[in-house]
Amino acid sequence: MYGRYTQDLGTFAKDEAARLRLQQGHGEGGISRLRRPSELLEYTQGRCAPCRVCTWQCQRFLISKVGEDWVFLILLGLVMALVSWAMDFAIATCLQAQKWMYGGLDTNVLLQYLAWVTYPTVLITFSAGFTQILAPQAVGSGIPEMKTILRGVVLKEYLTFKTFVAKVIGLTCALGSGMPLGKEGPFVHIASMCAALLSRFLSLFGGFYENEARNIEMLAAACAVGVGCCFAAPIGGVLFSIEVTSTFFAVRNYWRGFFAATFSAFIFRVLAVWNKDEETITALFKTRFRLDFPFDLQELPAFAVIGIASGFGGALFVYLNRKIVQFMRRQKTINRFLMKKRLLFPALVTLLISTLTFPPGFGQFMAGQLTQKDTLVTLFDNQTWAKQGISDEFEYLGILEAWRHPRSNVFVTLVVFILMKFWMSALATTIPVPCGAFMPVFVIGAAFGRLVGESMAAWFPDGIHADSNIYRIVPGGYAVVGAAALSGAVTHTVSTAVIVFELTGQISHILPVMIAVILANAVAQSLQPSLYDSIIRIKKLPYLPELGWGHHEKYNVRVEDIMVRDIRYVTLNCKYRDLQHVLHGTKMKSLPLVESAESMILLGSIERAQVGALLSHQLSPQRRLQALRQKALAEDGHHRLSDASIRFQISTDTSSGAPSRAASRKPLKPALKRVPSGTVETPPASHTLPVLCPRLAHTLPAASVWVCCPLLAWKVLMLPLLQEEMDLGDRMTPAEILEWEEQQLDQLVDFSSAKIDPAPFQLVEHTSLHKTHTIFSLLGLDHAYVTSIGRLVGMVSLKELRKAIEGSLTAKGVKVRPPLASFRDSTASAGEPDTTALRQLWDRHQHHPMPRETGPRSDDDDDTPK
Amino acid sequence: MYGRYTQDLGTFAKDEAARLRLQQGHGEGGISRLRRPSELLEYTQGRCAPCRVCTWQCQRFLISKVGEDWVFLILLGLVMALVSWAMDFAIATCLQAQKWMYGGLDTNVLLQYLAWVTYPTVLITFSAGFTQILAPQAVGSGIPEMKTILRGVVLKEYLTFKTFVAKVIGLTCALGSGMPLGKEGPFVHIASMCAALLSRFLSLFGGFYENEARNIEMLAAACAVGVGCCFAAPIGGVLFSIEVTSTFFAVRNYWRGFFAATFSAFIFRVLAVWNKDEETITALFKTRFRLDFPFDLQELPAFAVIGIASGFGGALFVYLNRKIVQFMRRQKTINRFLMKKRLLFPALVTLLISTLTFPPGFGQFMAGQLTQKDTLVTLFDNQTWAKQGISDEFEYLGILEAWRHPRSNVFVTLVVFILMKFWMSALATTIPVPCGAFMPVFVIGAAFGRLVGESMAAWFPDGIHADSNIYRIVPGGYAVVGAAALSGAVTHTVSTAVIVFELTGQISHILPVMIAVILANAVAQSLQPSLYDSIIRIKKLPYLPELGWGHHEKYNVRVEDIMVRDIRYVTLNCKYRDLQHVLHGTKMKSLPLVESAESMILLGSIERAQVGALLSHQLSPQRRLQALRQKALAEDGHHRLSDASIRFQISTDTSSGAPSRAASRKPLKPALKRVPSGTVETPPASHTLPVLCPRLAHTLPAASVWVCCPLLAWKVLMLPLLQEEMDLGDRMTPAEILEWEEQQLDQLVDFSSAKIDPAPFQLVEHTSLHKTHTIFSLLGLDHAYVTSIGRLVGMVSLKELRKAIEGSLTAKGVKVRPPLASFRDSTASAGEPDTTALRQLWDRHQHHPMPRETGPRSDDDDDTPK
Repeated sequence: MYGRYTQDLGTFAKDEAARLRLQQGHGEGGISRLRRPSELLEYTQGRCAPCRVCTWQCQRFLISKVGEDWVFLILLGLVMALVSWAMDFAIATCLQAQKWMYGGLDTNVLLQYLAWVTYPTVLITFSAGFTQILAPQAVGSGIPEMKTILRGVVLKEYLTFKTFVAKVIGLTCALGSGMPLGKEGPFVHIASMCAALLSRFLSLFGGFYENEARNIEMLAAACAVGVGCCFAAPIGGVLFSIEVTSTFFAVRNYWRGFFAATFSAFIFRVLAVWNKDEETITALFKTRFRLDFPFDLQELPAFAVIGIASGFGGALFVYLNRKIVQFMRRQKTINRFLMKKRLLFPALVTLLISTLTFPPGFGQFMAGQLTQKDTLVTLFDNQTWAKQGISDEFEYLGILEAWRHPRSNVFVTLVVFILMKFWMSALATTIPVPCGAFMPVFVIGAAFGRLVGESMAAWFPDGIHADSNIYRIVPGGYAVVGAAALSGAVTHTVSTAVIVFELTGQISHILPVMIAVILANAVAQSLQPSLYDSIIRIKKLPYLPELGWGHHEKYNVRVEDIMVRDIRYVTLNCKYRDLQHVLHGTKMKSLPLVESAESMILLGSIERAQVGALLSHQLSPQRRLQALRQKALAEDGHHRLSDASIRFQISTDTSSGAPSRAASRKPLKPALKRVPSGTVETPPASHTLPVLCPRLAHTLPAASVWVCCPLLAWKVLMLPLLQEEMDLGDRMTPAEILEWEEQQLDQLVDFSSAKIDPAPFQLVEHTSLHKTHTIFSLLGLDHAYVTSIGRLVGMVSLKELRKAIEGSLTAKGVKVRPPLASFRDSTASAGEPDTTALRQLWDRHQHHPMPRETGPRSDDDDDTPK
Repeated sequence: MYGRYTQDLGTFAKDEAARLRLQQGHGEGGISRLRRPSELLEYTQGRCAPCRVCTWQCQRFLISKVGEDWVFLILLGLVMALVSWAMDFAIATCLQAQKWMYGGLDTNVLLQYLAWVTYPTVLITFSAGFTQILAPQAVGSGIPEMKTILRGVVLKEYLTFKTFVAKVIGLTCALGSGMPLGKEGPFVHIASMCAALLSRFLSLFGGFYENEARNIEMLAAACAVGVGCCFAAPIGGVLFSIEVTSTFFAVRNYWRGFFAATFSAFIFRVLAVWNKDEETITALFKTRFRLDFPFDLQELPAFAVIGIASGFGGALFVYLNRKIVQFMRRQKTINRFLMKKRLLFPALVTLLISTLTFPPGFGQFMAGQLTQKDTLVTLFDNQTWAKQGISDEFEYLGILEAWRHPRSNVFVTLVVFILMKFWMSALATTIPVPCGAFMPVFVIGAAFGRLVGESMAAWFPDGIHADSNIYRIVPGGYAVVGAAALSGAVTHTVSTAVIVFELTGQISHILPVMIAVILANAVAQSLQPSLYDSIIRIKKLPYLPELGWGHHEKYNVRVEDIMVRDIRYVTLNCKYRDLQHVLHGTKMKSLPLVESAESMILLGSIERAQVGALLSHQLSPQRRLQALRQKALAEDGHHRLSDASIRFQISTDTSSGAPSRAASRKPLKPALKRVPSGTVETPPASHTLPVLCPRLAHTLPAASVWVCCPLLAWKVLMLPLLQEEMDLGDRMTPAEILEWEEQQLDQLVDFSSAKIDPAPFQLVEHTSLHKTHTIFSLLGLDHAYVTSIGRLVGMVSLKELRKAIEGSLTAKGVKVRPPLASFRDSTASAGEPDTTALRQLWDRHQHHPMPRETGPRSDDDDDTPK
């Protein structure tokens, strides 16, 4: 009997394992799963049992460590630092190669031009083609998509390995081409993909990574890592990613971002030290401004001017970028042509831009030979280029040489640079390759700041300060202010200020930077949406617009003004015919379930798909056949079907959770029905059979294999029976079928198998638009029901909310009064609707036959007539 | 008739004004209120009508501007900058005075000691006494209270003018005494009070400031202003205030904080420039560290050590602080003694601390003569104090002299300083005066960092780097790292890193600071709550603990494991007796209202006070008298009361909104009852009479004055009538009264006059603890009902949630399984409870007499027996 004992135990262990895997599928019980098999191992009395127990414990310890947040964050930071560093290396090599080619061919201008132009065109075309083929989702910045994903919307294919590869390679090629493109937006996307892939990989070791809430928190941290390791700016990265992707930020998630971004930035910079690029860890674009007197108080107006002008410039950039996209879309001829040859547009744009920057050509007037990095280094330079307006006196050293032109002065070069780069960047960011717009805008802002700074330096050669010490004006400081202001204006963020401090390694200009950034934001936010919101609208991603700056209307608009009152609903005691009507009458994704049409008490919400499944189950051919057979059975007597098989069918019915699943597995039932009752040993567990199937197969006698793999068995053995059933169905004429279906539709709906959301989100009529917006963005809602003392009175979905917000935002000067709001003033007391609703409900109850007193009470009732 | 016309118009205008004021009380209609009177003005055909219209329009424009957020923020920033600067000035003067006294008496050590000790003792005692008398709410930091207020809890008297005055004066005296106390926590509180007072002041011009949501947003911005203008650190201020006060932060509120804090910091520093303290705007504690090679990569372990040690130190500080408070509370003898002489404890502590810091005494070993500001300046100093361990070689200049002692070296001084200041600060912050702990901790951290830095400098005199260039170690950098790490550990924030960059004006040590702060946070957070959370627990403020770092249990615990199942509820068709039972049986502040005990469908929630009011109204003597009178009336015939007076009473009944109000105004009714119906001209508006009273008085004939001021009139005229009524009541014997009350209690409750929350927040049984915590902290909930398809199944309040979180947090190693969770695994399908609930509901409907089909349907029903 020993043998049978072990076999039983083995079966039990396998059963247990399968059960635990099921549990793991539900995203819980991770820890209990780790403990139990080790307990079970002690039963197996083999030689290496202690050894195995020990291994189990080690494994358990390691797995529990893998589940810790900090392990994940360190891994994420490490991977992203490596990716960032490797990409930087590859990009630098690409740019070096272009410079080398250009330099080597300096004997022939035509050859030089061809090399200068062909190289980026090939790279961009490859990038566009590669991305298009492998994963079109990798195109563009990625921040708008991340914003949408963090709001709770599931975007398919945006966080896959294919997209990761496409984005990394596409971005490297795009940036290697030297076009005015950025890497910060794509890095946010890459880091998020990295986090998603990493958590999928680590979930092999434990079930911790299958919790959705946790994954969203990790994605938010990943966004910070993306910015952090792109600029080696951990604090700015965290803040920027919060501002750009979140509406409400959980402070408890704060440390995750800081931890991962700091670690990532640290490794990223340490790699540079190990590679002997740097002597120690310093900022990426280190500046060496004067510490003791960074700026004069009287220079502040100039900084404010930079801020305001950057605000207008930022809004113009967003507008221009959107218009270019819309123009390309609307022009049908262009569109049709470009759709055919998708790679032509990138190639043409690259050709145009690289032609214009060709250094011996027009490029000499706009420092065309400098890469983005070199441009920034020169712009943040400590020296003053225009000494008293005479640029010739000044010794240009090294790469600074590029800004100098023998026949013009530095102001002209700067103005040309700003103007040309402005439209070039707006155009280049519409190319369908992975690319961001932050860096190009940052460079333009720096150039604009430098221009203002140089002008100030020319205007006040010895500084403004009238005292004994002469403190010259530092144009580099203006460049820093301009860079922060313009990038802040385009992205509608304040944290660009922090990013510039971390990028330059100096914080001495904190007040000018803050003032300029805030002014730029104030101007830009009142003119245009942020670049990312603009892309969200262009791409038509599901979004919720922000409430604007201090509009009071939002406090006065209430849910009752914007809600949809005429909604379709499902009642608890409705018939299948009513379901059909409701499905035809509305396109809502979920339907409210109310107690009855009179009470309208909201019980829950049921998905449209579930309602459809209920209907199709009710009208399914299987049920018709079954009905037919039972009819035949009643006629023929009980000679065909045994009692046991009916009972078996009952148990299957009970256990099937959702009707959609039940419907898809329906074909099995007729097959199972004719099994002699002896073969099936465990009827209550029958619904787990498909899962246990491969494991149990060898423990059961060969004759019962088809129970475990019913689909196969059904195909092989049951074909004749199925045929017979089809014949049964075919015996009904179409008219009979119709009659049967009509009959079925008149039945009451059985909701017991439908999946119902038992507590959908509810609002009250008096909730303000402001609060509604807060709740929708906090909880990532799609729709909410409006109830009044349990009664369903309306519904608000994202659409209505969006309309209401945009309505109250566009017409700013005039007070927008929603049509229904005007009636509100005439109703005297605020509590009235509630009372009315309650009264109705109460009255309804009073109509029930109940023992009711008479006497003084009846007077009170008459006291409150409506 | 012209005269009457104008009089009517005047009445109308006044009526309108009163109506609008009422509206304004409801927090809406602000704009319509501004427009209408100007329209009305056109009717007055006086000479200066156009002039007045013009004035109105100007006023309207100004008022609309006053409503803008930015005006409010600028005003707030300005006021706070002035307050901060004035306080700094006063504190500096106080400290100067002490120094002057101490310096002037250098002939006699005893006199010197007396002066040194008496001065702070007097100041602290005054501060404690003044605060105690004026506003005890001003004691302490204020951040814990602000955290609670921003969670949505209303703390009385915390944002009043009295508290403001007490806090400002108390804080100035406390800091002027030179004790190791900080000003940053109190500044957060002061700024919040400033915002609250300012919005109350500005609400005189318009109704915009009466929206609660907006006020909370402004309070959050005010917290940022508080930190920002205290340290002239706008970015750090915003981040610190977010970390310290919020759980979830609305990104749309971000710019408010930045805007106000930047403006405030700007004005604060400009005041210093105008006062000729500074040449231009710079950081408060400017450092001048080497830019080109701030630190070696190999120094990072030392920085990490600072971080970890600071983590332990911070946790110890919080522990020590709490233990001191608890010790003072528990020792009953001490406690009783101190309660009698409240000012003795502050005086004793001050005496002890100032005795120990007396410079010619023990103070010489701990740089006792330096103020907090001087200490920081010296600690952040650029020079190395210990050159190769021999401190004598080094020239101490100016205030640096304090750190030098002829008979010991700088290491001893630093160690003594750290140890003494540590317990002194922990003790001093328990004194009941307005004070924070941030600055003292910051100083201790800086000293600890300096100690490590000096040790490193002594260990590696020529730096660690082995290459050609010699880069000496900068101990000042270590001090910066230590300051950020220790203050970060005590407050559990990361943003202290940003604060030190802004305070020192240098960002070159960003990576060491970030690493140390994160490590310090990791250690401190796993050992102790933050100082503010610790104070919240000591003060027993309503709070919700944070979920810890990466505990997986929180994902596995569900609402059904922690909810209270046995809750008292009110049914719609209950009797007053049931209400009485419920009130006796529970202490919950609000009770769920369900349709019936069988269906348990949740309709809303009703406050306990409302239930009490309903009951007391039902059993009120007035109603008894009325019943008695009506009985008498029925017997006597209709000879005493006219029809009209009854009708009038009805209208009053209908219009009174809440029963509590109705109950409090009940005494009026009998008085009004016997009014001849002709006198009362506007019965439907009778409930607005008390408001209109003073305005209407002169428009009505003198004889009807008592209608307008009924309370007075009632007293004068109606006393005999009241007496008569009392007699009527007295005619009932106690037994009769009891019988009458019993009879009343058996009546069905009339909820129509009760205020019911029509959509209380609902959760589902399967909601995880993690999500519940998120929702509670997001929406600032106090309790939530757990429903299952409309049915009330339980309730979760803050208490349960707190227990569950702390349960799963304290027992960390072991998996805490809540008692009910173990049953979950045995239930096979997750959807079962829902189905059961639905089935019950459905069955209930089926039992109603309804036409029901038989046939194939009945099989389906039998399929799912339970």
